Amino acid sequence: MPKLGKGLVQVYTGNGKGKTTAAFGLALRAIGRGLKVYIIQFIKGGFDYGELYVVDKLPNLTLKAFGRGKFITEKPAEKADVEFAEEALALAEEVVKSGEYDMVILDEINVALSLKLIKIEKILRLIRNKPKHVELILTGRYAPNEIIETADLVTEMKEVKHPFNKGYQARKGIEY
Amino acid sequence: MPKLGKGLVQVYTGNGKGKTTAAFGLALRAIGRGLKVYIIQFIKGGFDYGELYVVDKLPNLTLKAFGRGKFITEKPAEKADVEFAEEALALAEEVVKSGEYDMVILDEINVALSLKLIKIEKILRLIRNKPKHVELILTGRYAPNEIIETADLVTEMKEVKHPFNKGYQARKGIEY
Repeated sequence: MPKLGKGLVQVYTGNGKGKTTAAFGLALRAIGRGLKVYIIQFIKGGFDYGELYVVDKLPNLTLKAFGRGKFITEKPAEKADVEFAEEALALAEEVVKSGEYDMVILDEINVALSLKLIKIEKILRLIRNKPKHVELILTGRYAPNEIIETADLVTEMKEVKHPFNKGYQARKGIEY
Repeated sequence: MPKLGKGLVQVYTGNGKGKTTAAFGLALRAIGRGLKVYIIQFIKGGFDYGELYVVDKLPNLTLKAFGRGKFITEKPAEKADVEFAEEALALAEEVVKSGEYDMVILDEINVALSLKLIKIEKILRLIRNKPKHVELILTGRYAPNEIIETADLVTEMKEVKHPFNKGYQARKGIEY
């Protein structure tokens, strides 16, 4: 039963912190209202993130992560990366189209797009054809212009100051 | 028992979306790792937010909200607003100093500072005197320069595109 009148397309991009965490915060708010949320993580699969350990405790929240659990630095990407991204996309299409979820979060999809793991036309079509009530959240650096033009709400997380620039290591429980 | 070696001071500011939600996402990640989190909301008390309905279900997460449940537009602020902010600050000082919490989130404190509900010297002292392991998260628009200079990690949420500019209404489950 759709609970939102009109779902928007939200984008969180930029080089600063807070994109994935903002998406998880949105999920938390939505399930607090009894909405159903599906999170699909592109690229991140296999990485160990603290939030994954709480998801099971939360009602109305489903999460699937795809990827090889390593940063993709090579261009062109390896075949395995493309396959994972295509699997994630196929699930995203199915989940969005079903209309069963009020909010669908495609985490790091902008990175998958910028690495050309998936074709932007497919995402634009997914957005165009989504059921009206579905809120769609796209995160990740390097959001392509076409995505920004299509989205209703775009926030750029801008790095103003970052300790990693001074040689800090990522910390368990904070950065992952 | 502190689990972080060195806690940092993180600031999420700017006019874009995702500041409070990013803080809640950080809390989710932290409790997923067994860290203890305390969220103190300045200004927001009395407002009805979706995330408040899930907090009780989560282990190791405590939340207190202060405020009159209305936006403060008057300058100077009313006496009640100042009193709520001072109460919130007193609790923040106590919680941080105790060292019992690995992460302390002061939500919307930047707004309280910019409205001069509390004195910036008090926050700077709180930061200076915090136990080493405590991660401190400060959110809200208008973070004062002194806070940005003192913080280790600063992200500006920049509004690129926002449907409210076109007359949208805030939606239950998404914006609150």
